[in-house]
This record gives sequence, structure tokens and C-alpha cells, in this order.
Amino acid sequence: MESILAVLVENRAGVLARTAGLFARRGFNIGSLAVGETEDPAVSRMTIVAEGDERAIDQVAKQLNKQIDVIKVKPLPQESATRRELALIKVKAATKTRGEIFDIASIMKADIVDISPSTLTIEIADRPERVQLFLDMLRQYGVIEMVRTGMVALQKGGGSIEKVE
Amino acid sequence: MESILAVLVENRAGVLARTAGLFARRGFNIGSLAVGETEDPAVSRMTIVAEGDERAIDQVAKQLNKQIDVIKVKPLPQESATRRELALIKVKAATKTRGEIFDIASIMKADIVDISPSTLTIEIADRPERVQLFLDMLRQYGVIEMVRTGMVALQKGGGSIEKVE
Repeated sequence: MESILAVLVENRAGVLARTAGLFARRGFNIGSLAVGETEDPAVSRMTIVAEGDERAIDQVAKQLNKQIDVIKVKPLPQESATRRELALIKVKAATKTRGEIFDIASIMKADIVDISPSTLTIEIADRPERVQLFLDMLRQYGVIEMVRTGMVALQKGGGSIEKVE
Repeated sequence: MESILAVLVENRAGVLARTAGLFARRGFNIGSLAVGETEDPAVSRMTIVAEGDERAIDQVAKQLNKQIDVIKVKPLPQESATRRELALIKVKAATKTRGEIFDIASIMKADIVDISPSTLTIEIADRPERVQLFLDMLRQYGVIEMVRTGMVALQKGGGSIEKVE
């Protein structure tokens, strides 16, 4: 099972290494991890997607909470979270196939962000499963390279990670 | 100066910890790091943004290349890369201000993805500086929480990280 953890950490050298190390020591493979700034420059927010049952993830969350650099950890159940991912995909596109690829991108609300005589680069920002579907649709043309951000998530409704429940 | 590194790594437990550890030991603070899947399930692609002059980053790139889990490292100069970031931003929005926020989101091509009686959650996918601008525009309403993916980047044109130059 895939579990999502939202983690607020101090924005310092070494925090990422210590956090990732904690997962590694427990044999958890991190499926994706994204870390970016928050409104407070001293604080970063990580979104970690890890394989493991609820109990195992709860254990990791508790261990994370004990780390000195970790401010707050919150598991985000899929059904109550808005989940998004961004991907840039460079696909082979000759004059003949360019129109077909453009159609698929339009249908999926993806944007073409670069063009060359033999390629198109497309940006998609959507739920992870939609990003996967888009990629499946492009595969027949030949994916040259791609980069994905990993998932980020916020809980639905008016609450926040800071709010005590 | 901000430098971008694209890094292909083996998709294994511990790779992220070792990579982040290498930056930490050299005192580099990682500004953002995003890691996601590639077309090959055995390979992940990281995009690392780090502060440091070109020479320092070149040193780190060389050290990364020596790591057993690292398949390929490529510095991506800003001017020759398509750079994107995704953010989810939850902002205070009462009946009176909802329309104003909707206008700003429309102008910036951002999508409203969730609503509550007192909040709006907005998704923006754009160049990092445009994400920042959007955030600056929303700040007056009160940002409740946000999450950013960190930057991902692909080189412009038809080439790829795999291609020897």
C-alpha cells in the first residue's frame, strides 16, 4: 500500500539526508519525495510516498517526529487529500505524428512547452494516475526522456498540517 | 548562484540518503530536490537545486558520479533548460474575496482544485519565478498552508541526459 506523509522540517543542510536515512535503515523504499519551501524560509515541507502498511508507516512517522529537525509529521489518507504531480516528457515527434500528439495533449489538458524538428516536450500537472495515463498514451511515439516531481498533497477542506486535531 | 543537477540513480532503498548525505557532508544546502520514476522502473531521476558557484557544483557532480548507485549526472544551465514547479496553495477566502482570488488565479493560469466555506486551494504549475509571483499575489489574503514540488527540468531541444555530448 502507498502511504503519503507530509513532513515539516527545519530548512538546514543535512535534514534531507537524515530523513531519508531513517527510511533506508528501516528498509523502506521511498517511492517519491518532493521537498520545497514554505511561507517560512526557515521551514521546508516534504511529501514522502512510501510503500508499507499503515502500522509500519505509523512507526516511521513516530520515529520522524523524534528527530530534532522535524517540526511536524502528518499522514495524509488518499481519500482526504488533493494529490498532484508534475511531469515534463520529451517525446519523438515527426511532422506526421505532431498533430496526433498535440491532440492527446489537448485532451489531457497538457501543455506543449518546447519543440524541435524531431521532438515535442510536454508538461502535465495532474493526479499521479492521470500523469501515468498520459505517459501510457505517449509511449507508442517513443519517450526520449522525462522527469517527474513526485507527488505533493494537501488535505482537503479548510484545515492544515499545523492545526491540532 | 543556483545550479540545477539532473541525476539518474538506481531505484533502491538508501540511494536518496546517500545522495543527500554527499551534499550535507560538503555543507551544501539543497534548495530543492524532487525524485520520481522514469520510463525504466529500475531507474529514478532526481532534480537537485543547490546554492554554490559553478566550480563547487562541478566538484559535487564529480563526487556523485563516483557513487555506485548513480548512473548519470548532468548539470543543466538555466538558459538551456525548461524548468517547472508545481505548488498547491490553500488561501483564506471568504464570500467577499473569493472573486478576487479567482481573478488572480485565472490571470496566472492556475486552477482552483478545492473549496471550503473559508478557503480555496489552488494548483499552479509554471516556472519557479512565476509560482513565486503567484504566491506574492495571494499573500494579502492569508496563506494557510502550501506545498511545493521543487523544480524539475529537462534540457531544451531534442537531446537528452542519456546522450553523450
